[in-house]
Amino acid sequence: MRSINISEKLALFSSHWDPHVVSDYNDNDVMVVKFKGEYPFHKHETTDDFFYVLEGEMIMDIEGKPSQVVKAGELFVVPKGVVHRPRAETEVKVLLIEPKGEPNSGDSDREPAPKPRI
Amino acid sequence: MRSINISEKLALFSSHWDPHVVSDYNDNDVMVVKFKGEYPFHKHETTDDFFYVLEGEMIMDIEGKPSQVVKAGELFVVPKGVVHRPRAETEVKVLLIEPKGEPNSGDSDREPAPKPRI
Repeated sequence: MRSINISEKLALFSSHWDPHVVSDYNDNDVMVVKFKGEYPFHKHETTDDFFYVLEGEMIMDIEGKPSQVVKAGELFVVPKGVVHRPRAETEVKVLLIEPKGEPNSGDSDREPAPKPRI
Repeated sequence: MRSINISEKLALFSSHWDPHVVSDYNDNDVMVVKFKGEYPFHKHETTDDFFYVLEGEMIMDIEGKPSQVVKAGELFVVPKGVVHRPRAETEVKVLLIEPKGEPNSGDSDREPAPKPRI
């Protein structure tokens, strides 16, 4: 039981769309991830999706709505069942929380990321 | 459904040990709080306690262990059932996550905070 330095964890990998587990909160994985480019639209039927932008700028597209910019120091929670697509023009670093076992790709055709622990 | 600027929310209050709800994640309150001084030792029997330090420095005392400093950009999750005490020599700003309805004071004699939404 100790403090987890998020920047140190982010320095351990350089891949995009590849969340790494850094801690646990009840039955959730607490993860760090780097995004660049565009993820497929998807939804999570049974869980909200928690994004906190640590560095850079994420764009969140919600189906049928205008794109929203989410900047460093901003939080965006996508409610369960809502079709969304995170993207980023330049690399963004994000703290993610999702229930354990939840595929990060939701209902899309994209292969879910393995979520290794670092 | 929109991005939540954490600094803007923190600017809305100045009290200490007084978490304010800024968002929801499944059945949890996502909160911001300012700490200064010392909270009573307590535990949460049925939930982990999530702390992410946004600004300043928190000290986390775990019963029977050496105090740990948790700096800005660091995460500390106290597992359920573990007796702990957050404190801060100078004001620290923290992102907190706790299940809805959970008293922030756990099993201590302290009056639980009301957790208003901002």
